[in-house]
Amino acid sequence: MKIGVLLSGSGVYDGSEIHESVLTLLAIDKLGAEAVCVAPNKNQHHVLNHMTGEEIEQTRNVLVESARIARGNILSLSNANPDELDALAIPGGFGTAKNHTNWAFEGADGIIDPEVRDFILAFVKTGKPVAAMCMAPTTVAKALEGVDMPAKPKLTVGTTEQSSPYDIKAISEGMEKLGVNPIMCEKDSLVTDDINNIISSPCYMMDATITEISEGIEKTINKLVEITALAQDDEAISK
Amino acid sequence: MKIGVLLSGSGVYDGSEIHESVLTLLAIDKLGAEAVCVAPNKNQHHVLNHMTGEEIEQTRNVLVESARIARGNILSLSNANPDELDALAIPGGFGTAKNHTNWAFEGADGIIDPEVRDFILAFVKTGKPVAAMCMAPTTVAKALEGVDMPAKPKLTVGTTEQSSPYDIKAISEGMEKLGVNPIMCEKDSLVTDDINNIISSPCYMMDATITEISEGIEKTINKLVEITALAQDDEAISK
Repeated sequence: MKIGVLLSGSGVYDGSEIHESVLTLLAIDKLGAEAVCVAPNKNQHHVLNHMTGEEIEQTRNVLVESARIARGNILSLSNANPDELDALAIPGGFGTAKNHTNWAFEGADGIIDPEVRDFILAFVKTGKPVAAMCMAPTTVAKALEGVDMPAKPKLTVGTTEQSSPYDIKAISEGMEKLGVNPIMCEKDSLVTDDINNIISSPCYMMDATITEISEGIEKTINKLVEITALAQDDEAISK
Repeated sequence: MKIGVLLSGSGVYDGSEIHESVLTLLAIDKLGAEAVCVAPNKNQHHVLNHMTGEEIEQTRNVLVESARIARGNILSLSNANPDELDALAIPGGFGTAKNHTNWAFEGADGIIDPEVRDFILAFVKTGKPVAAMCMAPTTVAKALEGVDMPAKPKLTVGTTEQSSPYDIKAISEGMEKLGVNPIMCEKDSLVTDDINNIISSPCYMMDATITEISEGIEKTINKLVEITALAQDDEAISK
């Protein structure tokens, strides 16, 4: 089983959240599946100093920086073939809302990179499962905007019942505006949309320890691999 | 229990190995200890494109880039007080041999950053345990060069009996030249120097999967926490 891992740079504030990305790769490998890292070959929206939050006057490329997490083993999105992948996982970090979409600046009204949208939709439209962690459900919501789905997609970015550094209510409302049913979900748990084969988990959208993140991601990837195997069985039977 | 985690940037080829660093933070948190990330506030030796290996004409700061792994929660080495830490863990990556020492270019004959050396020795000289992973044992060997130790320090960078992308024999010989007893060690295992309270584990010095790395690091940090607790008991009894 080959699982695409869509990255958006390397570092929570301008790229992929590093802990979530590494723990995703670990969870996939532990289950005997193969992770195939991919990222768009384009410049990052910006580069942030992760100590101060200040902008650094540099240009960095999303694919090249994502390669740090992938230890060089990564494909440009334009060279990645969804037909050769069985499922997709998208770790969070602001990078997904700055480089995949511009949600961090424009919210639900913003745009999504067409290459990122088409890549995600290639999975969704063929019934291949997609797992979105942390902020990545907003990117999936943007990809699904205007798409005729078998049922209203269920996605989570966390819960207003636990403490979070972010405005979970506003982000959930943004997803709702795009036609998603936003579900409240606790930090080490996940939401499974069985009809659309989409899984989501809050991870660092909530105040959480790395151990809690690890548990949430392990559950998410376990479920992703489980429903991917089921989807492949169904396909084999129908042939 | 507070464990310092000494970083050297963010990315295997010019900084800290990201998988090893994240899995170190996870293993520490899982055991209920607190990780305190630290890094020297200085420019990286260079910046490498992790897809091509080519140099990128940019200046990046070791502390600022390490902050990506630490999610901003990191101290400059000059502001870190070893007296407030109970043990030290050093993940690998070429960064430790490019930014902590210049072993990657000069081998055992090279230099070590005096601030890095003094920080490591502050632990060693007070009997506080140190764990060095992957290439980091070479940095510990440089720190110990010329230091009068209770016994010849035992360290590992892997084994010549398993496949490795690196020249384990030459690196082991370099450590030997500095007064270290280099031990052969398989990829998901560790070497414990009980007299000097130093632990080492090969990690990505060998051809290894992220799951194997995870196992090696979990064993290493479990042992680090175990001998740190013992060292603290001994100190309490002697008072």
